[in-house]
Amino acid sequence: MRKVAIIGAGMTKFGEEWGRGFRDLIIEAGKASLEDAKLQGEEIEALFVGTMASGSLIGQEHTGALIADFMGLTPIPSTRVEAACASGGVALRQGFMAVASGMHDIVAVGGVEKMTDVDGGNVALALGGAGDQEWELFTGATFPGIYAMMARRHMLEYGTTEEQLASVAVKNHKNASMNKYAQFQNEITIDTVLKSKQVASPLKVFDCSPVTDGAAAVILCPLDKAQKYCEKPVEIIASAQASDTLALHGRRSLSSIYATQVAAKNAYAMAKLQPKDIQVAEVHDCFTIAEIMAIEDLGFFASGKGGKATEEGKTALNSDISINTSGGLKGCGHPVGATGVKQAVEIAWQLRGSAGARQAKDAQIGLTHNVGGSGATAVVHIYKKAF
Amino acid sequence: MRKVAIIGAGMTKFGEEWGRGFRDLIIEAGKASLEDAKLQGEEIEALFVGTMASGSLIGQEHTGALIADFMGLTPIPSTRVEAACASGGVALRQGFMAVASGMHDIVAVGGVEKMTDVDGGNVALALGGAGDQEWELFTGATFPGIYAMMARRHMLEYGTTEEQLASVAVKNHKNASMNKYAQFQNEITIDTVLKSKQVASPLKVFDCSPVTDGAAAVILCPLDKAQKYCEKPVEIIASAQASDTLALHGRRSLSSIYATQVAAKNAYAMAKLQPKDIQVAEVHDCFTIAEIMAIEDLGFFASGKGGKATEEGKTALNSDISINTSGGLKGCGHPVGATGVKQAVEIAWQLRGSAGARQAKDAQIGLTHNVGGSGATAVVHIYKKAF
Repeated sequence: MRKVAIIGAGMTKFGEEWGRGFRDLIIEAGKASLEDAKLQGEEIEALFVGTMASGSLIGQEHTGALIADFMGLTPIPSTRVEAACASGGVALRQGFMAVASGMHDIVAVGGVEKMTDVDGGNVALALGGAGDQEWELFTGATFPGIYAMMARRHMLEYGTTEEQLASVAVKNHKNASMNKYAQFQNEITIDTVLKSKQVASPLKVFDCSPVTDGAAAVILCPLDKAQKYCEKPVEIIASAQASDTLALHGRRSLSSIYATQVAAKNAYAMAKLQPKDIQVAEVHDCFTIAEIMAIEDLGFFASGKGGKATEEGKTALNSDISINTSGGLKGCGHPVGATGVKQAVEIAWQLRGSAGARQAKDAQIGLTHNVGGSGATAVVHIYKKAF
Repeated sequence: MRKVAIIGAGMTKFGEEWGRGFRDLIIEAGKASLEDAKLQGEEIEALFVGTMASGSLIGQEHTGALIADFMGLTPIPSTRVEAACASGGVALRQGFMAVASGMHDIVAVGGVEKMTDVDGGNVALALGGAGDQEWELFTGATFPGIYAMMARRHMLEYGTTEEQLASVAVKNHKNASMNKYAQFQNEITIDTVLKSKQVASPLKVFDCSPVTDGAAAVILCPLDKAQKYCEKPVEIIASAQASDTLALHGRRSLSSIYATQVAAKNAYAMAKLQPKDIQVAEVHDCFTIAEIMAIEDLGFFASGKGGKATEEGKTALNSDISINTSGGLKGCGHPVGATGVKQAVEIAWQLRGSAGARQAKDAQIGLTHNVGGSGATAVVHIYKKAF
């Protein structure tokens, strides 16, 4: 397989973008990534896009062709992939394979979701399709309830506290306050979280990522051609994906995500690296408990130690490991199909040293971790500065 | 890139399967393909599945993970791709790339759609998401209307007749009468078609493919390992995909599908073959006019000559070229996400010589052609007997 590099990265501001539609968002992100790579567009040979629920949210399927059309990129092959909230990460992996295989040289990967065109009830129904509709959604188990069960189990097994959960949100809001693309650019306190409305005990409003519109895109090419387009290419040194049961009741554990553990193990093996080699990581904090499980499952901290580590500041910017410098899903927002690609954009910026006030010092190796549903899909990519 | 072969193929009966759900269908097809390749399941390294509109039709996204789960194949990576009615063909292409790249050895590719769980109006809305919802669906242009416009234009430019359109349906029902997996196993006459109810003039009920439940699957592996699993492997010698505008109003022609022409040209170049080298082809006859355009755009007949050729029997079984031996989408049925994979199953059976009464004599080279929407995606694969 050929080595693959990111040569362009761009995204929209994440937020409730009432004035803009699905098409506007992905075009803005796509153009930003092309301009970043100093490309006109005609160099792109294939397009992969992650979108989770455009059928339910805006009445539109076939979004691969839609984007090729509205980006003016027809007749290149354009493919939508869907893996719930991991759609963006899986799209990145398809783009990686297309370049690695030799099938295509320059490939664009996008992620996009327009979530605010329908009301909250319909958003919950659409997102519920990420879980097992027959066993979970149709019996009333929506995602806050599902992650609340995981949080309760983590608290029972390891003594994780509500304050430790809250410390994830506080850190991620702080990072987001330094990110002009983030939905929430305000700092919060532990008290903000603890006193916010109950959603599904122990998770409160500020333990949950928001409903968000947004898009992100990266441009990939073979590493040996990357310097032609980009002074600071970032190599993707590992790409791994794993699956698990769709419903929570089939899992071997409720306090960890097995698909993350498998994808991480395979990614570390592919990169010939260990968790301690990672300086900066974007992990899937759809709920605060999800970040705590992620930093344990990815091997950054031992099982059960993630809450305490976060509370002690070990995952803050420029501490032991800089986790979710972008603000994560909690602070930056979570347009479900876009998130996995946005994570790659943030890591590309971090490894290039262009992340401004939220720059992780001397970042050489980065990681992204994107989860679908309650953990039925996990995708892990590892990146290396290649200049 | 490595050479890739099909070592297993299976499908469910297509039809209105009231007693079976989405999961039952894909499991049956998946098991049939595994048994055909004499595999237990644990040999599978990755899974790709085409599903168009499970979110709208059964309230379920994340179908890649769902299928890995219910097939007992976790924790392997499992990815859903969606390109409207070309979802199956695009899934096959992702599986092809995964093996060709060296990323995976044994890969399963599935396609599935459960369409009869909602009423006809909701099916039309869900399928409308294959076109441009802002410019077409929301103004009332559903798919029969869109293809009717293409039929009218073809009739205007080339003098194609309603009888010629009908002759596509008559041939495909005849082929389907020899296929135990087909939804319609009854022969019809030109009069059956001409006297059936108007849907969108000039298209009548018998010019349209039906609403169908069904699933299909194939197993892929590197060609040099294929003999280990399969006495009669079939090599995939070309895979090409192209895009075009989502809405009809943006196209350069209404009487041909440009994405098919581009994908075909690229596929023939990759296979180093010409249209005359193909003996058997499954083409995308979602409406009778679609088959006429397909056999022209694929280069089997000159532009405007497809209707006459069909009427003269040149596309019948064991004539100039055997088109849609399975019965096509018209006779075999069209579970949208499954169709592209079913086409590959039929060609694998034809090249192995196991198609029974509908066997094309001495078939050495086959082709599949799968279209998304009204032509915004087209996928062409070419296959060669490899034993």
